[in-house]
Amino acid sequence: MPVLPRTPYPIVSSSRLAANIQRMQALAQHAGVQLRPHSKTHKSPVIARMQLEAGAVGICCAKLAEAEVFAEAGISDIRLPYPINPSNADRVLALLDKVTLSIIVDDPAVAEEWAGAMTRAGKVLNVLVKVDVGFHRCGVNPAAADVVETIARIAAMPGLSFRGLLSHAGHAYTAESPYALAAIVAQETEIMTGLARRLREAGVPVDEISVGSTPTASFAPAQHGITEMRPGNYVFLDRTQVALGSATYANCALFVEATVVSRPAPDRAILDCGSKTLTSDGARGFNAFPGFGAVFTSPDAAGPDASIVIERVSEEHGVCRIPESSTLRPGDRVRVLPNHACTAVNLMDRLWLSDDHGALAPLPVAARGRIW
Amino acid sequence: MPVLPRTPYPIVSSSRLAANIQRMQALAQHAGVQLRPHSKTHKSPVIARMQLEAGAVGICCAKLAEAEVFAEAGISDIRLPYPINPSNADRVLALLDKVTLSIIVDDPAVAEEWAGAMTRAGKVLNVLVKVDVGFHRCGVNPAAADVVETIARIAAMPGLSFRGLLSHAGHAYTAESPYALAAIVAQETEIMTGLARRLREAGVPVDEISVGSTPTASFAPAQHGITEMRPGNYVFLDRTQVALGSATYANCALFVEATVVSRPAPDRAILDCGSKTLTSDGARGFNAFPGFGAVFTSPDAAGPDASIVIERVSEEHGVCRIPESSTLRPGDRVRVLPNHACTAVNLMDRLWLSDDHGALAPLPVAARGRIW
Repeated sequence: MPVLPRTPYPIVSSSRLAANIQRMQALAQHAGVQLRPHSKTHKSPVIARMQLEAGAVGICCAKLAEAEVFAEAGISDIRLPYPINPSNADRVLALLDKVTLSIIVDDPAVAEEWAGAMTRAGKVLNVLVKVDVGFHRCGVNPAAADVVETIARIAAMPGLSFRGLLSHAGHAYTAESPYALAAIVAQETEIMTGLARRLREAGVPVDEISVGSTPTASFAPAQHGITEMRPGNYVFLDRTQVALGSATYANCALFVEATVVSRPAPDRAILDCGSKTLTSDGARGFNAFPGFGAVFTSPDAAGPDASIVIERVSEEHGVCRIPESSTLRPGDRVRVLPNHACTAVNLMDRLWLSDDHGALAPLPVAARGRIW
Repeated sequence: MPVLPRTPYPIVSSSRLAANIQRMQALAQHAGVQLRPHSKTHKSPVIARMQLEAGAVGICCAKLAEAEVFAEAGISDIRLPYPINPSNADRVLALLDKVTLSIIVDDPAVAEEWAGAMTRAGKVLNVLVKVDVGFHRCGVNPAAADVVETIARIAAMPGLSFRGLLSHAGHAYTAESPYALAAIVAQETEIMTGLARRLREAGVPVDEISVGSTPTASFAPAQHGITEMRPGNYVFLDRTQVALGSATYANCALFVEATVVSRPAPDRAILDCGSKTLTSDGARGFNAFPGFGAVFTSPDAAGPDASIVIERVSEEHGVCRIPESSTLRPGDRVRVLPNHACTAVNLMDRLWLSDDHGALAPLPVAARGRIW
């Protein structure tokens, strides 16, 4: 008899995972854009290979240490939509010997450092310029008077092969309505295609316009001129995606199987999953419900039990407010849908893939914790 | 020449770590209570051994999977101040063959399950009863009319050896002033010693009264009747402990060495550490400053640069608001003091111990992610 993992453990529905991969690939194909999934969500070369077999052109990684794991596992086309610092030029050069690699830059001085490092090594590095489309994290300001000149300067640097423009509308996660979400996508499309047009008019070829996030992905068919999208979360989905209208509960592939460990008061139950299992990432999305995850009282339930709210998380405790009439007792099992799959998975050394009969197989989170 | 780790990486000052261990041990000895550090903060048998060599009577673990790692590493006295579910009786029995073990219970029905499992195996399990002293997480309600009767019933169960009472004043972290913090400790002491007295009057021997948290630890000398304290965070300390008056910046032993990777706007800089490095645990403590960590612009700085605020964390980005006059540029190094050391360390496969000359040695976080 196989030994079952002890709670809390992450359980992934193989069939939902496969369906999510197929659905996003179909969406990209219908829109006529290439799909390059972000691997930060699963950190698993096994799942990356499923995405590539479904038709993805390559993957994204956030950090070089993640890319090193995926390259070692044989993934051959990796994009780093992250402003890698040139102090890591040695690692980028080592990766260039193994894989097709591209990075982003958002600063001409940094681009010059990359150009110098590549020229000295006799190599060429594919770069895209990151554009700030309203998230106000990284990226060049598309409204700056000299933006075309700045990008043209980067595109002309020796040792760099300018591939195009890249954006991430991360502010989609804080959109206050579906209409606001649609407006964010429309603005991103306008900024990106408009900037590409101005660059082309200035004689700078723009081969790629890459956008990406799971909440904005379903708007892709409207994005004329976009060549690529880079959603990550869609493989598993989570409570935030449901709250943003990007998924239904029935799409969600990743849950945490947990045990009630205490019922210290009529209106309180304690789960064995806290911030070291679920993270302390709060609920997001315009339809967000309070709490640190949605509690399903049976694996077959169509939706969570809304009367159970994980009000607080300690490191190993999920403190639930429950109705006094609740029958929850120590030893009872529940399934928790995390607020944020990407950060929860990053706490786990392995996921447990479940087939339709409930048989479990371990899947290593190979690039877990590879933050450097 | 040794290869330096790439940023972001956690760096621990060996001398501050040693001083923190000595200081807490001296505090416990002065108060006449035993020190049993919680290992959840460091998850390292190496650091546990330093604590034991300084005089600790044993350690605490939160989960059985942590205890399994520490037992394997030769730590011989482990307390689990966590309501372990009896579905794990097989693992507890296996541990009993290796170490002196104690757990907590807060429910007579659960205690009965433990009693049954132990009796069937011909073993005896040390238990303490968890008392809710105001945190309202786990624990029996000390104001319940039948609390003495309930604990007496548990104490009389075969297969269990009743050791005494245990509490955790986790609400100390949300105290709104130093006076409120002192009042929480006074209340905890009154509840615990009062309940012990009533139990003794009822003929139930109470050998141990165990309390514990880092913010309440410095009040220990006033806690007459308490036999043990179980702080965990004190080995590293963090920004929350400084905000609670439990530490100075100069005591803090754990920082994240990070690199500026973008300066996309005059008032914004991006660090290469986000919620997958620092967690998204917010600032706590009555003197809390906003932001996801305190930024030190040099390793020798006496305090953080208060003009730099990590306003948002994405998974791999720390988005800092900075003065427009700031000279921060991509490639610059900073050190970030995390809001919460215990959860940040749980993201890391290894820490880097730094001696007084800055030489680094890796230290595995052996029980990282052992949530089950």
